[in-house]
Amino acid sequence: MSDSVQGTAKRIKRLEIQGARNVAIAAKKAMETLASQAEAHSKKDFLRELVKAKEALFASRATEPLMRNALRLIINRVEKTEERNVKKLADIVSEASQQFLADLENSTKKIAEIGARRIKNDHVILTHCHSSTVTNLLKRAKHEGRNFEVICTETRPMFQGQTTAKEMLDLGIKTTFIADSAIRFFMNQVDLVLVGADAITSEGNVINKIGTSMVALAAQESRTPFYVVSELLKFDPATMYGDYEKIEERSPNEVWKNAPKDLVIRNPAFDVTRRDFIHGIICEEGIISPHSITEVMHRKYAWVFEY
Amino acid sequence: MSDSVQGTAKRIKRLEIQGARNVAIAAKKAMETLASQAEAHSKKDFLRELVKAKEALFASRATEPLMRNALRLIINRVEKTEERNVKKLADIVSEASQQFLADLENSTKKIAEIGARRIKNDHVILTHCHSSTVTNLLKRAKHEGRNFEVICTETRPMFQGQTTAKEMLDLGIKTTFIADSAIRFFMNQVDLVLVGADAITSEGNVINKIGTSMVALAAQESRTPFYVVSELLKFDPATMYGDYEKIEERSPNEVWKNAPKDLVIRNPAFDVTRRDFIHGIICEEGIISPHSITEVMHRKYAWVFEY
Amino acid sequence: MSDSVQGTAKRIKRLEIQGARNVAIAAKKAMETLASQAEAHSKKDFLRELVKAKEALFASRATEPLMRNALRLIINRVEKTEERNVKKLADIVSEASQQFLADLENSTKKIAEIGARRIKNDHVILTHCHSSTVTNLLKRAKHEGRNFEVICTETRPMFQGQTTAKEMLDLGIKTTFIADSAIRFFMNQVDLVLVGADAITSEGNVINKIGTSMVALAAQESRTPFYVVSELLKFDPATMYGDYEKIEERSPNEVWKNAPKDLVIRNPAFDVTRRDFIHGIICEEGIISPHSITEVMHRKYAWVFEY
Amino acid sequence: MSDSVQGTAKRIKRLEIQGARNVAIAAKKAMETLASQAEAHSKKDFLRELVKAKEALFASRATEPLMRNALRLIINRVEKTEERNVKKLADIVSEASQQFLADLENSTKKIAEIGARRIKNDHVILTHCHSSTVTNLLKRAKHEGRNFEVICTETRPMFQGQTTAKEMLDLGIKTTFIADSAIRFFMNQVDLVLVGADAITSEGNVINKIGTSMVALAAQESRTPFYVVSELLKFDPATMYGDYEKIEERSPNEVWKNAPKDLVIRNPAFDVTRRDFIHGIICEEGIISPHSITEVMHRKYAWVFEY
Amino acid sequence: MSDSVQGTAKRIKRLEIQGARNVAIAAKKAMETLASQAEAHSKKDFLRELVKAKEALFASRATEPLMRNALRLIINRVEKTEERNVKKLADIVSEASQQFLADLENSTKKIAEIGARRIKNDHVILTHCHSSTVTNLLKRAKHEGRNFEVICTETRPMFQGQTTAKEMLDLGIKTTFIADSAIRFFMNQVDLVLVGADAITSEGNVINKIGTSMVALAAQESRTPFYVVSELLKFDPATMYGDYEKIEERSPNEVWKNAPKDLVIRNPAFDVTRRDFIHGIICEEGIISPHSITEVMHRKYAWVFEY
Amino acid sequence: MSDSVQGTAKRIKRLEIQGARNVAIAAKKAMETLASQAEAHSKKDFLRELVKAKEALFASRATEPLMRNALRLIINRVEKTEERNVKKLADIVSEASQQFLADLENSTKKIAEIGARRIKNDHVILTHCHSSTVTNLLKRAKHEGRNFEVICTETRPMFQGQTTAKEMLDLGIKTTFIADSAIRFFMNQVDLVLVGADAITSEGNVINKIGTSMVALAAQESRTPFYVVSELLKFDPATMYGDYEKIEERSPNEVWKNAPKDLVIRNPAFDVTRRDFIHGIICEEGIISPHSITEVMHRKYAWVFEY
Repeated sequence: MSDSVQGTAKRIKRLEIQGARNVAIAAKKAMETLASQAEAHSKKDFLRELVKAKEALFASRATEPLMRNALRLIINRVEKTEERNVKKLADIVSEASQQFLADLENSTKKIAEIGARRIKNDHVILTHCHSSTVTNLLKRAKHEGRNFEVICTETRPMFQGQTTAKEMLDLGIKTTFIADSAIRFFMNQVDLVLVGADAITSEGNVINKIGTSMVALAAQESRTPFYVVSELLKFDPATMYGDYEKIEERSPNEVWKNAPKDLVIRNPAFDVTRRDFIHGIICEEGIISPHSITEVMHRKYAWVFEY
Repeated sequence: MSDSVQGTAKRIKRLEIQGARNVAIAAKKAMETLASQAEAHSKKDFLRELVKAKEALFASRATEPLMRNALRLIINRVEKTEERNVKKLADIVSEASQQFLADLENSTKKIAEIGARRIKNDHVILTHCHSSTVTNLLKRAKHEGRNFEVICTETRPMFQGQTTAKEMLDLGIKTTFIADSAIRFFMNQVDLVLVGADAITSEGNVINKIGTSMVALAAQESRTPFYVVSELLKFDPATMYGDYEKIEERSPNEVWKNAPKDLVIRNPAFDVTRRDFIHGIICEEGIISPHSITEVMHRKYAWVFEY
Repeated sequence: MSDSVQGTAKRIKRLEIQGARNVAIAAKKAMETLASQAEAHSKKDFLRELVKAKEALFASRATEPLMRNALRLIINRVEKTEERNVKKLADIVSEASQQFLADLENSTKKIAEIGARRIKNDHVILTHCHSSTVTNLLKRAKHEGRNFEVICTETRPMFQGQTTAKEMLDLGIKTTFIADSAIRFFMNQVDLVLVGADAITSEGNVINKIGTSMVALAAQESRTPFYVVSELLKFDPATMYGDYEKIEERSPNEVWKNAPKDLVIRNPAFDVTRRDFIHGIICEEGIISPHSITEVMHRKYAWVFEY
Repeated sequence: MSDSVQGTAKRIKRLEIQGARNVAIAAKKAMETLASQAEAHSKKDFLRELVKAKEALFASRATEPLMRNALRLIINRVEKTEERNVKKLADIVSEASQQFLADLENSTKKIAEIGARRIKNDHVILTHCHSSTVTNLLKRAKHEGRNFEVICTETRPMFQGQTTAKEMLDLGIKTTFIADSAIRFFMNQVDLVLVGADAITSEGNVINKIGTSMVALAAQESRTPFYVVSELLKFDPATMYGDYEKIEERSPNEVWKNAPKDLVIRNPAFDVTRRDFIHGIICEEGIISPHSITEVMHRKYAWVFEY
Repeated sequence: MSDSVQGTAKRIKRLEIQGARNVAIAAKKAMETLASQAEAHSKKDFLRELVKAKEALFASRATEPLMRNALRLIINRVEKTEERNVKKLADIVSEASQQFLADLENSTKKIAEIGARRIKNDHVILTHCHSSTVTNLLKRAKHEGRNFEVICTETRPMFQGQTTAKEMLDLGIKTTFIADSAIRFFMNQVDLVLVGADAITSEGNVINKIGTSMVALAAQESRTPFYVVSELLKFDPATMYGDYEKIEERSPNEVWKNAPKDLVIRNPAFDVTRRDFIHGIICEEGIISPHSITEVMHRKYAWVFEY
Repeated sequence: MSDSVQGTAKRIKRLEIQGARNVAIAAKKAMETLASQAEAHSKKDFLRELVKAKEALFASRATEPLMRNALRLIINRVEKTEERNVKKLADIVSEASQQFLADLENSTKKIAEIGARRIKNDHVILTHCHSSTVTNLLKRAKHEGRNFEVICTETRPMFQGQTTAKEMLDLGIKTTFIADSAIRFFMNQVDLVLVGADAITSEGNVINKIGTSMVALAAQESRTPFYVVSELLKFDPATMYGDYEKIEERSPNEVWKNAPKDLVIRNPAFDVTRRDFIHGIICEEGIISPHSITEVMHRKYAWVFEY
């Protein structure tokens, strides 16, 4: 396996590379590099190298469906081609990799376009954590002239809500900032909840930043529509086959530095929002019911189920 | 009005005196001092001074039912007595004041005794914020030999959960500490929720630290019993007559120091947990349904409705 | 039995006298007249006449708790007095009758005073049908300078919502008028629901104009507070002893004049809103939980349980 | 302590005496015998004997509130009297004991009278287990000429539903018999659920035969009214002070005779139905909201809180 | 653009043509006429004319998915054909147009056939407003010999329930007619709710006559099955791409003629019933879960997503 | 029709063959025998015989989707082949039949593999009745080294839970056995519910042993995940076209032998668990949302919709 793959895997593991999108891009680049330097003499050997690289990159993070789907696409293209020439196979890797990125950018753009239509004047929109897919959507709505407000939760322990708040203010959007514990207090004033996704399961559930499922519960109690804004490739095919989406537990220090000895600090990074709390997933396909996610994936990206 | 009353009112307003109990004790002491130094020559004048003091102290904080009920008791005793001698009336103020304190201590003890019986071995108990009434109850259960665990929420923005966690560890109780956003994540493992109260309304709702109503919502969703632990004198008779319990909004700095200009920060200190989320109020009378709170008050402390 | 009683009973039966308040006033007047003209020579005979009159008036309407409680009060006073002189007993009837009216007016005033405190600036308040207790409350809030909007439902089949709308416009309140079927459509914009009551049962349920329970259901689904505004004397003690509050079915013509032959038209005038949908009953005692209504009645008006 | 008390306590413990009513009657009789044979020379000694007897009888069963309340009444009467003569105190015991029984019979009669008014023609009524208070009520409704059907659950493991079914058939009531697991299947056809109670807690919850809470859950899901039929003296004051109503676990043999070794068989005899599932408690006082039970007890039977 | 298209668009706009089916038929006829008279010399020009006509007809009504899907089908057929001859293209328009109509009639027939199987003897079926798809289904069930009752809501403000009631009576079906506000009052007696649809969104929600969502809410509360009866071509692909289904507001006069000046009358014609209230959509494909509607459309009518 | 088909149909009708799997295998064998002995001279005649046999076998049981789907597959293969030679057609029947069995075994294996991944150490799993698909899954999880407990309900009236309990004990799994009425009592201790299926409807509902829907209701109330474990071929295409899944009523003797005359005993064998209670269906395709079942069937087994 090339240094690039091992190095990338290491950097992902050490959190030097973060964010579903950045991780996916780094991994696909490592694959391109590997492919361009491959010394294999047959397609079979070439594929074996790719698969080994895939496994190393998969192992770098508990679950990272976007990255995994990027690698699945690349390997799928190589397997499916009639081409046997190793150099040309490397070109195919490169093309698949670039197409993945182009598709991803295209998806983000389409999602913003579709989702922005849901924002009306005078809407109050609540969002949790920071999701660039969500902020892109809001940016688009603002650029189209819609006049709305945003409520950002601070999103303990890492305060990613501060990033969201700054982006909103920079766009000239009226922004309110609240502690996570105040979500229910303000929910009756909210017209629409928009959150991102780290992963989508075969049952239609969404894994996202810890606290998202409480936002969903409070939204449901107030009859406030709750939408997930996400590329379909956040779908994790492993959940189809029984795997739980693993919930990463992060350092206790994020929650309390210099905490008393003997104190157990639990710091799960994500939680699960069940499909029945989700009005729709705003994705590149349009707005869909999460209950049909597996069939949507079979129609649009059937190759994710192959590896 | 005596310096003592004015000074106490000021210190309460500036938050130099905090906590329902401490505020009540300071206010009753100010009343005692005022009474002992009163220069009134008639009961009528004496009462007028007391009432002016009461109003000054009431004005020091939006809602502080325990303090207000302490002053109500003192004035009630003076009004009801046949005594006309001003010196002896001052003694009555002093007696009423001391009895209030004694009763409060007695209530806290009874509450601990009653509530501790609800703790079983191997229970996992979740609490939010810091409430000395709750921690007393847990201490009592521990001293009686029960073996249980406690989950403390950090309680942003002021991290009062850290105080609770330290007290629990000092008692030798296994303690887990989590961010507020993780409450729903852990709720299925919880056997019992115990929280304190800042005020109880005539409808049977409980005002407590911001986030309490989300704990209650998540508890209900998981069929986890949710109890409020509180002295009955947290009941606010003003709610009977239509006043909303005012929800204090505290400084934005508590939520985000050096926040961007133009950002609106909302920092409500409390929220309302409706009676239907509350399995029972553990009070000095026993464990009661919050729906009957007004009748309980009429039976036990009818004088709170008179002023 | 005097003509007055028989005549009044007839006019009530024929709906020539309508509205809980008007019916109660007419009945108590008939009792006064009867008492002043009574030819009885003993208290026993006098009481027998009163009881016969009571029975005649009770029989004039399926359920009319306010009127029934007025008569109960009168009889209670006569029974309880030491007085034996028939003329003086007639004076007692007259005093009780006048006191009932004075108390009722006082209750209405107190209810307006208490309830008006719940109206905040910018509130949107939805009300169903026409209730003078509710419109009094809103009038008071308006006069106190609060700035709010009202949504009136038309309230088929008799369009009482039109009366409410006109009263609101006359007070200079911004008023919106909607069909009953549109209640859920607008509920997410409503801050507070206020409705009257025709009767309150011992379980804490409220009988009110048909459709009220659907308003309550839609309010609950949107986490919108739902309050009943009513004098306590709408409580029907017969429900305590197992009687269902009878639901009057009115003429099919109200729903469809010249309807096809063979069509069954059902026109129930009231429905039952269960206590768990009701945040509070705003009554002369203050704001109470409906779950405690029977105990409140025992404390305030114990005599209603005696007849 | 007399043989009678010890013997009775033993027979209760060995389940030779069963049923809340039978146990209460046996215990009160033992008290009468003890009192009539008491050799005490002072009221103080006499009371000490009674209290010892009470403790022995309390100890014979985990929770048996009706019996306990019977003994509480007897001791209360002795304590409250001015009488000091031991023979006359024995008479007071006897009177109290007989009054308890008379009151109980009176309550059962009143409950039947009140509850029967809730049965309408063509009603389908579901009941679980066997409760004589419930069957008395149904008998009364039948005798009053109401025409209705009853669905009985078999009530595993002891098949008490068979007793109920036989009683219903003997009354000439159309009766349907189903397995416990079929309750939800039939619930949409049920108009009214009526169950008895083994104990009522201070929160307003009802302890009754295992499965009752599932009936309540299925009734709620179908908007079917669910009533508990019970004497108020099933109230257990110990729950007021924090004690859980103990749930007896009975012999595994009731569930599976000759079960495989190593199999754990759990056989709880009762479960808890929370107050929010209960439309009303039909008791001697009338139909009340369970949320107000503690205040009702304070008003009617304040002495239960004294011991 | 031909006169026919402009004229038809105008008549649709002025509500001279009403009802989803009639509007669709008029629009497709206008397209046929346009095509038969087209003077275009190339397929490209021909298509340009069709697209202009489509846009004119789309603009005639806020949302009218059945009509829009009719036009989408016609244009799809022209675009997809290899044919270039303009006359023959006009024939293709005509064929597509006729096939659309034939398919629609076939769908209605299949829906009646499928749905009628759900009607059992003695069923009480509630329907809201007037839907010919629903009444066809009931007619079929009646003709097959099933014996059932129907409850019709009057459906303010336009009383379309009267039309439904008359149709039912003409079929010899026992029919009950109620005000909209009485829906919840009768819901416990209802076995099945059947309503039509004006549009179906990509999330699986159904837009139908105002009040439908309240029927659904009351049905859910009583565990009464709620089915939507609709052709799949009521699906609106624009909702897929973020557009809200626009809710038409109709004339205030429908609600209150000669209403007081200053009164705001809101008269939304439709509301949204969320998918989670809907047991199934009875459509030409069979009975489906609304959550899968988008995938069903992709499988059966993929062309609706292309324009 | 061959003796084999008639004999098999009879034995199925008489319950001499039981269990979805056994019935399906017997029916397909009868078809193989019929095919191998067929005297038809043309494909048309051959098919006619198969269809007659299918109808006889369909008629043997109200609904038995697995068996029906087996026969549908066989006939589909014959219809679709180009082959016309009757002997070769018989081979095709045989191949289809064997493939059906192989696929079924493969499905069961895959389901166990997928589902076992959902079992974690220390899990408490509740199951109702006996399902070999469920016990296979648990066996697999045990063999993979997971350490968990199982709670079995006794499953009146036929006590199939005893079979499950014995199998679990034989696998060395800690097993608890409870009466059906105790399900809610224990639900808060359960981590996962797993049940089988007798049929799956086009709406996504699951028909399974009576009581399953109560387990689901209690699971939902406690936020306990509820999964159905089933081969996709339990899907019943007839439900697509409006047929209710018929609920078999079995002998009263199963519930009460020697019951009193006049007693109506109802003994439905199955009930319906609506899709919204089901977290997922664990099937050979993976874990899917029941809401998408029809689309999954169209993708995987489209032929079931053809007959």
